[in-house]
Amino acid sequence: MSGTLHLIGVGPGDPELMTLKAVRLLDEMPVIAYPVSGSDGRSMALEIARTHLNPHAVYLPVTVPMREERGPAEAAYDEAARVIRAYLEDGRDVAWLCEGDPLFYGSAMYLIGRMAPHAPVAVVPGVTSLTAAAAAIVRPLAARDDMLKVLPATLPDDMLRRELQAADAVALIKIGRHFDRVRALLAETGHADSAMVIEHATLDRQRLSRLDDFGAGERPYFSTILCYRRGEAGR
Amino acid sequence: MSGTLHLIGVGPGDPELMTLKAVRLLDEMPVIAYPVSGSDGRSMALEIARTHLNPHAVYLPVTVPMREERGPAEAAYDEAARVIRAYLEDGRDVAWLCEGDPLFYGSAMYLIGRMAPHAPVAVVPGVTSLTAAAAAIVRPLAARDDMLKVLPATLPDDMLRRELQAADAVALIKIGRHFDRVRALLAETGHADSAMVIEHATLDRQRLSRLDDFGAGERPYFSTILCYRRGEAGR
Repeated sequence: MSGTLHLIGVGPGDPELMTLKAVRLLDEMPVIAYPVSGSDGRSMALEIARTHLNPHAVYLPVTVPMREERGPAEAAYDEAARVIRAYLEDGRDVAWLCEGDPLFYGSAMYLIGRMAPHAPVAVVPGVTSLTAAAAAIVRPLAARDDMLKVLPATLPDDMLRRELQAADAVALIKIGRHFDRVRALLAETGHADSAMVIEHATLDRQRLSRLDDFGAGERPYFSTILCYRRGEAGR
Repeated sequence: MSGTLHLIGVGPGDPELMTLKAVRLLDEMPVIAYPVSGSDGRSMALEIARTHLNPHAVYLPVTVPMREERGPAEAAYDEAARVIRAYLEDGRDVAWLCEGDPLFYGSAMYLIGRMAPHAPVAVVPGVTSLTAAAAAIVRPLAARDDMLKVLPATLPDDMLRRELQAADAVALIKIGRHFDRVRALLAETGHADSAMVIEHATLDRQRLSRLDDFGAGERPYFSTILCYRRGEAGR
């Protein structure tokens, strides 16, 4: 009997935003794997889940190189999948910790594709950084018949411009070094007025700012930008 | 000192998908308000939270008429806001239970707008039906540089068609009586192959189907449709 790989969402940062199900499973899991950033050696997912982990579990940190080229990261997931499969074949369950939700722009997809076809994989959904950011500013992410677009800032200018022109509610993610470009596109497409920058949502260092309040050259960290104008998408 | 209105997300249905924070707050709240469907007299939010409610709290069911015209529902929220404000002015905290997440197409926005400006309102984000649906089919909702569009099926055909034509990952919500229309639009825009229908996500009666497997005239209930084709949006 194969063990099951449990992809477990641990939420956006505040450990109290973990679900009861995530907490129960982590307490039961004999093997707990998690991604570690190759740039700073930290694991946000592990830090969130820390107080709820089974102390007798086997821990499998997976260092994921953060570089432009995908090769080193792919190799890290190959190796992680190999080790995880060995535990599963031995009949042991394995948890993979995911910041936020496992299937919302998460690392879990890199593992799903590497499991044997029909290997048991189960997913515990989690609170995303998106709704956590909306909660921080107490403003609807979307409502009624709004369309909501989640746009990675890594997309090219022409695509972002086209999508922003016809949009009610927008969440921009993966801002990083794209901040200046995104800011210009939001101004151009009429979203600057409502744009709020949410940094480190739900953590002690959470910071909320109007996009307009960022000085030239200043840039946010680990942020989401939320825009909201109702009924502008053509109806 | 005014009390605080806590808008509390209780997740998509499985009570174990409530967050630790929601459970703690519900146990502490002296007043608990929640929407009740005017059509069947049930409160999904209350049913989800039932095992975690403070038995000594005051309960405030708010029956929301489910009709095409908005007037009766608006009147119900007016009255609910009036009663809630009286408790807050008396210094008592009030919880408002929300299915899923309070700010993701939720009823909470109708209350936020009716509170006094600067009245203390706090939000506990919750797991949405969207990530719960993705978890049920163990498929990414979106990943890497995918754009994700959340489209209410209540939008007009031309708008849905335009958005679907340029889309990687799509979630169609509020399907209801729009199912046949949405199905035709998904076929027309090349999304039918990947379209999965998730009914009653995370509940015992959860049902997963390919869109193609629905017979003519058959319609899903309380469903989300998820589509996913990578890299089709023009890059």
